[in-house]
Amino acid sequence: MNNDSRSDSPILLTPGPLTTRPEIRRTMLRDWGSRDKAFIALTAEMRQRLLAVAQGEDSHAAVPLQGSGTFIVEATIGTLIGPTDKLLVLINGAYGERMLTIAQRLKRCVTLLRWPEDQAIDPARVDHALADDPAITHVAVVHCETTTGLLNPLEALAAVTTHRKRALLVDAMSSFGALPINLRQTAIAAVMASSNKCLEGVPGLGFALIEKKALEAARGNNASLSLDLHEQCRGFEANGQWRFTPPVQVVAALVEALRTLENEGGPSARLRRYQDNFDTLAAGMAAMGFRLYLSPAVQAPIIATFWQPDAAWFDFASFYDMLATRGFLIYPGKLSHANTFRIGCIGALDRNDYQRLLVTIGDIKRELETTPVRPRV
Amino acid sequence: MNNDSRSDSPILLTPGPLTTRPEIRRTMLRDWGSRDKAFIALTAEMRQRLLAVAQGEDSHAAVPLQGSGTFIVEATIGTLIGPTDKLLVLINGAYGERMLTIAQRLKRCVTLLRWPEDQAIDPARVDHALADDPAITHVAVVHCETTTGLLNPLEALAAVTTHRKRALLVDAMSSFGALPINLRQTAIAAVMASSNKCLEGVPGLGFALIEKKALEAARGNNASLSLDLHEQCRGFEANGQWRFTPPVQVVAALVEALRTLENEGGPSARLRRYQDNFDTLAAGMAAMGFRLYLSPAVQAPIIATFWQPDAAWFDFASFYDMLATRGFLIYPGKLSHANTFRIGCIGALDRNDYQRLLVTIGDIKRELETTPVRPRV
Repeated sequence: MNNDSRSDSPILLTPGPLTTRPEIRRTMLRDWGSRDKAFIALTAEMRQRLLAVAQGEDSHAAVPLQGSGTFIVEATIGTLIGPTDKLLVLINGAYGERMLTIAQRLKRCVTLLRWPEDQAIDPARVDHALADDPAITHVAVVHCETTTGLLNPLEALAAVTTHRKRALLVDAMSSFGALPINLRQTAIAAVMASSNKCLEGVPGLGFALIEKKALEAARGNNASLSLDLHEQCRGFEANGQWRFTPPVQVVAALVEALRTLENEGGPSARLRRYQDNFDTLAAGMAAMGFRLYLSPAVQAPIIATFWQPDAAWFDFASFYDMLATRGFLIYPGKLSHANTFRIGCIGALDRNDYQRLLVTIGDIKRELETTPVRPRV
Repeated sequence: MNNDSRSDSPILLTPGPLTTRPEIRRTMLRDWGSRDKAFIALTAEMRQRLLAVAQGEDSHAAVPLQGSGTFIVEATIGTLIGPTDKLLVLINGAYGERMLTIAQRLKRCVTLLRWPEDQAIDPARVDHALADDPAITHVAVVHCETTTGLLNPLEALAAVTTHRKRALLVDAMSSFGALPINLRQTAIAAVMASSNKCLEGVPGLGFALIEKKALEAARGNNASLSLDLHEQCRGFEANGQWRFTPPVQVVAALVEALRTLENEGGPSARLRRYQDNFDTLAAGMAAMGFRLYLSPAVQAPIIATFWQPDAAWFDFASFYDMLATRGFLIYPGKLSHANTFRIGCIGALDRNDYQRLLVTIGDIKRELETTPVRPRV
C-alpha cells in the first residue's frame, strides 16, 4: 500500500516486527532529549492515545515499558500478582505457556487450565475452576494466540471473571489496535500489548493499560527495578519523564503510528482492512490447495496458519527462501504437534499486497512442481 | 559536525540519548524480519563488533538485551550473582547506588563501600574489604560515574580483584567505546553498556560482554525470563536469533554506529575527539567564570559538571530554556548535596559545536546580567 520506500524493505508477513509505513519510519530521523519538554509532551500524547484506543481514559493508566512484548507481560505479572495472590493462566498456545513460565519463575502462586491449540478457551470451564478455587485472585489469558491466529472469547471470559470477582489480565499483543477491546464495557484489570503489531509502529516498546486502583495497590510487589510498573507509572506522574532512558525514536514512531490509526478510522477500520487481507489470502491459498489449520469459528484475521502441503513439491525451507528472494518474508509454524507455516495479515499492507503475494506463491508452486525438489540435508 | 539533518534535531549535551549522525539515523528507514537471515547476519555482526571494541573475542560473549542501561545492569547482576554468592558494590554516585538497589531488591547477598561523589574509589580500601570478607565473590563498580563525570581507576581495581580472586563487574555505560577497556589485559567478568552513549547509536539496547565460563555457570540464577542473560546468549548460540522481538531499527543503527567507530579510528580516536570537546568547553566556561565540580585528576571527558553560579543573574530554569530555544539541550545536576548542572561531551559533536555553544552561553549570560531575572514561582 506504500511503495515509495519499499525498494530495500521486504514485505513482512509475520506476527511482528511487521511492515510499517515509510512516513512512520521517517519520524525516526531526528534526535530527542529524553528529559526535555518536547519529549515529555510526546510521551504524554502516547500514553493518552494508548488509553483512547481502548476507551480506558477514566479507569486505567497507560504504562509503557522499554523492551519486547515478553518484557511487558513479565512486568505486569510481576507487578500485579502479589505474595498472597494466586494466578490462573488459561493456555491454548505458546503465549499462554509463556505467561505460566513467567509466573512460575517469579515464584508466584499459579495454576492453569489447558486447551488444545486449535480450540478456544471455554468460559464455562473457567467458571467452574473459579468456583472450585476461591484462592484464585487473577486470571490471565491471551486474546489472540499468535501461535495460530486463534481468537479467544474475551467478553465471555470477562463476564465470568467479573461475576466471580476476580481480576482479568489480557495479553492483547497481536490484537490491540484492531480487534475490539472496550475498557468501559469490559472489566479488565490489565491489557498488555506492544508497539509493533496492530498499532503498526516499530519494535522496542511494550505497554500495559492497568486499572488505576490495581496499579496503586501493587506497590512493592515487583522485585525487579526495571520491570516495576507501579514505579514506572509513578515516574510518569511525578514529572512526565521515563525513569530510565526510553528508545526515543521508537516512541516518536509509535506516536505517529497512533495518529495514523486515528486517521484511518480507529481499530474498527483497521480490522476491516486486516479482514480483507485475510479473506484475500485465504481464498487465494484455498484455490491453490492450501488448507487453514483453524476452523473459521475461532480464526482471527491477524495471522493465518496453513498446513504444510503433504506433496512432493513442498519443502518449507525452499518455499521460504524463494519467497524471501522475491521480497516476501513469511513465518514458520509454532505448533507443538503439527507441520504448519504462518502468513501474517497485519501491518501496513492491503489486498493488493496479498494479490501480489498469491501470484508469487503460484509461480513458486509451479516452479517447484516442475523441477525436482533439492534433497534435504 | 554533521549539519545536514540538524534542522529539526536539537544538539544534545546530555549523557544520552545524545546527538547521532544523520547517516546512522537513516539506517532506521527500513523494515527487517527479525527471524530472517539478513537480520541474523546483522545481529552476528553487532555481537562480533561489540566484542572487538574491548578485545574480548576470545574470552567473552556479547549478550545484547532490549531496554535501557538499567535493564542490562539488572540482567547482569540477576544472572551472574547466584544464591551462594556475595556482591560488594563500590559507590561514589547515583549509578553505584542503583546497582546496590538492584541487588537488594533481587534479594542477593550484598555489601557496599561508599565514597564522596567527588572522590575516586580507592583500590587499597577495596583490597582491605576483600581481605576481611572472604564471602565476597563479586565486586561491582561504575567505570565513569555519569552522575558527575568522575573516572574510577579500572585497572587498579581489576588488579585488586584479580589478586583476591574475585569477579569484577563493570558498569561502563558512559565509557564503553571511548575510554580504554581491554579484556585481554584486564580481568573483568562482565562489562555492561548501552547503544546510545559513546557508541553513538540510538537508545533501546543494552549489552553485556560476559566471560564465557561465568555465563555458562550462571544457568538458573535469574528468576526473570526477560532478563536472563544465560538464556539470552543460548538463544543466539542456538540459531542466531533473539529470544524475543528485538528493536530491529535500533540494532541496525547500532551496527552502523559500530562501523562508524571503526572508521573513525576506534575508541582511542573517539576519546581524542571527546577530550577536545571537553577541553574546548572547560576553557571557554572557565573564561566566563563557571567552575568545574570535579578536580582534573578524576575528571573523564564524558560529561562536565559545573557549579551553578552563585550570582543574581543565574537561574537554572531560565538558563536551560534559553539554551533549549537556541537548540542546545543541557542536563540538570544529579548530585545529592550540590547545586550543579551538566554538559555532555559525547555524541556526534566536535569542537565547532562547543565553540557555538560557548558563544551562545556568553550571549545568554550577558542578556540575563542586563535584564532582571524573572521571579521564581
